[in-house]
Amino acid sequence: MEVKKVLLLDDEIPRQWYNILADIKMNPPLGPDGKPISPEQLAPVFPMNLIEQEVSDKRWIDIPEEVLKVLKIWRATPLMRARSLEKALDTPARIYYKYEGASPPGSHKPNTAVAQAYYNKEFGIKKLTTETGAGQWGSALSFACAQFGLECKVYMVKVSFEQKPYRKSMMSVWGGKCIPSPSPYTKAGREVLEKFPDSQGSLGIAISEAVEEAVADTTGKTRYSLGSVLNHVMLHQTIIGLEAKKQMKKIGEYPDIIIGCAGGGSNFAGIASPFVYDKINGKDIEIYPVEPSACPTMTRAQFGYDHGDIAGYTPLLPMHSLGHTFMPAPIHAGGLRYHGMSPIVSQLIVEGLITPKAVNQLDCYEAGVLCAKTEGIIPAPETNNALACVIAEARKAKEEKKEKVILFSWSGHGLIDLGAYDKYLAGEVIDYKPEDAELKKYAEILKNYPKPEMIKDYR
Amino acid sequence: MEVKKVLLLDDEIPRQWYNILADIKMNPPLGPDGKPISPEQLAPVFPMNLIEQEVSDKRWIDIPEEVLKVLKIWRATPLMRARSLEKALDTPARIYYKYEGASPPGSHKPNTAVAQAYYNKEFGIKKLTTETGAGQWGSALSFACAQFGLECKVYMVKVSFEQKPYRKSMMSVWGGKCIPSPSPYTKAGREVLEKFPDSQGSLGIAISEAVEEAVADTTGKTRYSLGSVLNHVMLHQTIIGLEAKKQMKKIGEYPDIIIGCAGGGSNFAGIASPFVYDKINGKDIEIYPVEPSACPTMTRAQFGYDHGDIAGYTPLLPMHSLGHTFMPAPIHAGGLRYHGMSPIVSQLIVEGLITPKAVNQLDCYEAGVLCAKTEGIIPAPETNNALACVIAEARKAKEEKKEKVILFSWSGHGLIDLGAYDKYLAGEVIDYKPEDAELKKYAEILKNYPKPEMIKDYR
Repeated sequence: MEVKKVLLLDDEIPRQWYNILADIKMNPPLGPDGKPISPEQLAPVFPMNLIEQEVSDKRWIDIPEEVLKVLKIWRATPLMRARSLEKALDTPARIYYKYEGASPPGSHKPNTAVAQAYYNKEFGIKKLTTETGAGQWGSALSFACAQFGLECKVYMVKVSFEQKPYRKSMMSVWGGKCIPSPSPYTKAGREVLEKFPDSQGSLGIAISEAVEEAVADTTGKTRYSLGSVLNHVMLHQTIIGLEAKKQMKKIGEYPDIIIGCAGGGSNFAGIASPFVYDKINGKDIEIYPVEPSACPTMTRAQFGYDHGDIAGYTPLLPMHSLGHTFMPAPIHAGGLRYHGMSPIVSQLIVEGLITPKAVNQLDCYEAGVLCAKTEGIIPAPETNNALACVIAEARKAKEEKKEKVILFSWSGHGLIDLGAYDKYLAGEVIDYKPEDAELKKYAEILKNYPKPEMIKDYR
Repeated sequence: MEVKKVLLLDDEIPRQWYNILADIKMNPPLGPDGKPISPEQLAPVFPMNLIEQEVSDKRWIDIPEEVLKVLKIWRATPLMRARSLEKALDTPARIYYKYEGASPPGSHKPNTAVAQAYYNKEFGIKKLTTETGAGQWGSALSFACAQFGLECKVYMVKVSFEQKPYRKSMMSVWGGKCIPSPSPYTKAGREVLEKFPDSQGSLGIAISEAVEEAVADTTGKTRYSLGSVLNHVMLHQTIIGLEAKKQMKKIGEYPDIIIGCAGGGSNFAGIASPFVYDKINGKDIEIYPVEPSACPTMTRAQFGYDHGDIAGYTPLLPMHSLGHTFMPAPIHAGGLRYHGMSPIVSQLIVEGLITPKAVNQLDCYEAGVLCAKTEGIIPAPETNNALACVIAEARKAKEEKKEKVILFSWSGHGLIDLGAYDKYLAGEVIDYKPEDAELKKYAEILKNYPKPEMIKDYR
């Protein structure tokens, strides 16, 4: 019988995360004094058990039983063969996808939300604050907090808050509190509102607000939670790639090409890291993180030190950055509208282990609708970025008459983002590409900070 | 290790549907002349291969390979143990649910949509028309038609069309065309609009419109498709219960109580039929179809002959009916707002094989939010009706200190119905219960039609 999907039973789910910090060297994050930041300096923001994970270089880290219990609601996610898409493209490529839309909030985000809620709970924390762009992360953290009995407060980028009212509803059902950012409740929010009363918000602003609220709680029972970018987030997401590897092995396959969309980098790092390990150890694989042309962090920004947020509350991180005041065009893949990139993903680019790609918004929606009609699942706007690249590679395989095996991460479903599809079908979705001069202007800010080392020594 | 979910691999999916017509006797549907309707009389509405299935009394019917191929996108659905809910209720009951929200449109509806699209395609049909209430069925049929390259036209009850714009968007992405009903494009629609220009629509009206459009196509290439009520729809849904039985067997369990929500009856019949077979053969099980108190078809209406639609285009069906002009209160479980009930489910009630229950809307939302916070998944409003009954039974088990095994069907997720949860959280959801006098008035119409026999001979 034709295999459509490969499953893992509950007792086949990986019991450890893969920590890529055991296999690559990184520049340290820097504090306000320009010196490497100490764990203690991060203590008001994150619980110490997560800070330890952030800096650990142990290759395998056990997944706590309590975390596994919750992950089992939807994990292992299925590995699917995209047979109908292959047929529509008439390609000799075999295309597989890891379907992360199977989770209750509909994306890969709860993989780390559940772990973070657990570690915070273990550390005695009662409340988490966070930001969210398109709303995937805020709803994932609300879901996770409900599982562990924590309070959850979400600052949601205002433009998305208004475009996607169902996201707030989801958070409310799980008991999370969601407010539009910039808000008048924080210093960071008020400063933006004074200068730009009509500000539509950005991830950078929302992060500042959430960090400020966490740090301001003098009882010490509130911490901040980040849905991407940081090392421990990438770590928790490796379960995607570890499962995929097991599943491909079951059917005797191994990928030639790995593709994932990248905004802060967690979905991409999740599917790719375990295969990067193989590449470091000699495997011949192409690995492509894909970003929107409208926010070309990996393909057109420099690798430097920059803040993760607009107010400069976060440490300086060694990463590809368009400059922390960069305002991406209002593309529908809200989860990819971020000025920076995970330091781990950035480091992999520097080392030449992965090759970033940028795709246009119109190509993304064309790809998304084709996949909805063939594979049946309506993809999240973020996933459409990966899909546009997958389709391009499948067409290339056809031209080259090569039987390539492509594996990609289907990061989420698009059922809460259908408004964007309406616009596409009505012909109202357009391409955006920032001018060189604009990018140069925002990048000026990086000159104020130290330069990271261009470490290239993975072999 | 604690089992959270039981899976079936692709090659363990059942290859045959169970046809309960082999095991119970039914009154025949009647034509306009009051005589049993012939297959030929249905030919303008349905393709002959589906009509044959509608009247077949073969116990096992093969699932075509082409249908299985599409079902495998999301089937087998997981059987989940509701451990967190059990804990929250402190009940000795073991609660299992079959999670049908895993399908691309998010409910059990594509189980029959895929089969119907396939058989129509096989019969040379190019276009399907249908109605939809809350939109679950219309999106499922749009999804299925995309898989087989058929056109799809959906008449959506106007009040839902306006409340749930994302449903239309879903259909559009899959290539389906959705218009609000009553519409000016059919005689049935125009007649309603003349009398009630502000009509918010009903399933009965939408069915009339869809049937009229199908029959009006003189090329013979259009047919009508119904998402519930009919025998072949119940047949296609039995895959739910057949899978559940296999899955329970894997962990050495068998249910004492089976629960499913029932509007037209297909979700309930899907989970229950294979267990009704066991009950006929001597097993001691309680089986509860659950309806909203606002639309008490099974619990307060008589078993009689009535039309399935408002204009009386459909044959007279032997079923529990509130009268085909009954207008249910605007509860949020749009899929359960139907005046009639599947003849199969009605017959099972007459025979005493199943015991209908009615639940209040407020209890449904309380149950839904509790399940979202414990089990993590936000339920569809329809599912909440089953949940309210499940929770009542689990509490009863606690009082009686009995280790009961409860199995229920989680018919879909509520991600497209979050507006209803917003209203609940804002305290704006209320209970509805029609007065006896109102029910009596609508039921008058049944007096015009023949009386079905009260067949009770399953043993």
